[in-house]
Amino acid sequence: MLISSLQNARVKHVVRLSSRRYRDAQRQTIVEGIRETSRALEAGIIPSEAYICPDLIAGQAAAAVVNRLQQFNLSGETGLFEVTPSVFAKMAFRGESGGLLLVINYPEHTPEELLQRDDPFLVVLENAEKPGNVGAILRTADAAGVSGMILCPEDGRGTDLFNPNVIRASLGAVFTVPVITMAAREAVVWLKGAGIQIVASTPYASALYTDVSLRGPVAVVMGSEALGLSRHWLDAADMQVRIPMSGVVDSLNLSVSTALILYEVVRQRSRNDEKD
Amino acid sequence: MLISSLQNARVKHVVRLSSRRYRDAQRQTIVEGIRETSRALEAGIIPSEAYICPDLIAGQAAAAVVNRLQQFNLSGETGLFEVTPSVFAKMAFRGESGGLLLVINYPEHTPEELLQRDDPFLVVLENAEKPGNVGAILRTADAAGVSGMILCPEDGRGTDLFNPNVIRASLGAVFTVPVITMAAREAVVWLKGAGIQIVASTPYASALYTDVSLRGPVAVVMGSEALGLSRHWLDAADMQVRIPMSGVVDSLNLSVSTALILYEVVRQRSRNDEKD
Repeated sequence: MLISSLQNARVKHVVRLSSRRYRDAQRQTIVEGIRETSRALEAGIIPSEAYICPDLIAGQAAAAVVNRLQQFNLSGETGLFEVTPSVFAKMAFRGESGGLLLVINYPEHTPEELLQRDDPFLVVLENAEKPGNVGAILRTADAAGVSGMILCPEDGRGTDLFNPNVIRASLGAVFTVPVITMAAREAVVWLKGAGIQIVASTPYASALYTDVSLRGPVAVVMGSEALGLSRHWLDAADMQVRIPMSGVVDSLNLSVSTALILYEVVRQRSRNDEKD
Repeated sequence: MLISSLQNARVKHVVRLSSRRYRDAQRQTIVEGIRETSRALEAGIIPSEAYICPDLIAGQAAAAVVNRLQQFNLSGETGLFEVTPSVFAKMAFRGESGGLLLVINYPEHTPEELLQRDDPFLVVLENAEKPGNVGAILRTADAAGVSGMILCPEDGRGTDLFNPNVIRASLGAVFTVPVITMAAREAVVWLKGAGIQIVASTPYASALYTDVSLRGPVAVVMGSEALGLSRHWLDAADMQVRIPMSGVVDSLNLSVSTALILYEVVRQRSRNDEKD
């Protein structure tokens, strides 16, 4: 079936998903572009609906995605629809999407999934806001091998994890890193109950992040770009650490400081048997 | 004098500075916004011209910048001009600039300036392209205390260091980190002549960046977001290193990987007397 009307109810639904409020209410988002849709499918995500614009699809990678979607369609898991270029242009959040657009349910994870490894290695974000930063942090979390991420919106709405710009900037890591959302109060109780050391990053700490032991179960807690970490987390932390800065500019980019601490965990764990 | 005409020659010059080609030809760029102009002045930069829009200026920080500019104007170093809101809107590269805009000459540095410390600590970028990455790398370079940065455009025009978006993303670090541009061939000869170890980052290296000694004079060389490092640098390097990645997404953000290696230098140097 070819959808050619901008008044089509499905089209309207997809267009509305460009609003965060609607995404969060529906617990659905859109994934567009060849690389992003490929990564979502590779990560095991089964879209609820998929929209393809045959006039815009080109290349083997796109054909492979379409093939996969056709299988899901046949097995009744994914509604597959063809749309005209003008309808696709209306649906696409970004300009260039290569004629592929998926509607997916927000991936849902449980706190228990984050404890499946022997030495849980978590990253907690209070309120990262810039899609580029959130995407880069997800890539780093994936590369560093964290067991999961916890989002703790301090106030307001917090990190917009399923913003299409985050999905893009993460290069698909948003599908591979298990992410849960918890109130900060609840997260602290849960982390302490699980025996996970809470390490808070703040420029006011006396200890350097490279001078403390990060070898056991650990949750690295990072504040927002603008405000840093809230009192709540600073008080709850087992350790506060800082990154040394010798320049005149007063802060590192949030995705950079997160990466430095996560990779210090990686470095220390790789030398578990050595004296450092 | 109040400039109200969009046809004014000075206004036209500033508007043309939004083009990289014109910036590079004139070796001038624009700095706008309260934070950015403050940082430029703090870093000792004396603008050749400054444009202020009295209707848009508000707050103490802006007043302090204006005050400083008036002093430069009185001493004959900076031409100071007032413009109408519509002229300012035309001149401003970004939307919100708080009524302050400077025209500055590109800061010029010599290779010798990069060798003023005992243990030179340099970062070489082949072709970083995204303003957000370049800005974040400059912030990191500032914070890590590098002695300078070398840009080596592999082909085409290379990193657009004085793009107003880089200036903004760097939070002013573009004014505090000495940056020079050199052809790659020339840079290799110069580094080797100065006894500086060349450390190239590539995912194909066998050594981890945390397993090699980075304590002496060192130049950390990073490739572009899309292509990585060119053959030239890989061949010239005294050491190739990689960052371990255990996830499914195949790369870290360039500003993240640069930061990890620069801060490993910082970590090792802080323990110069210890066995690590």
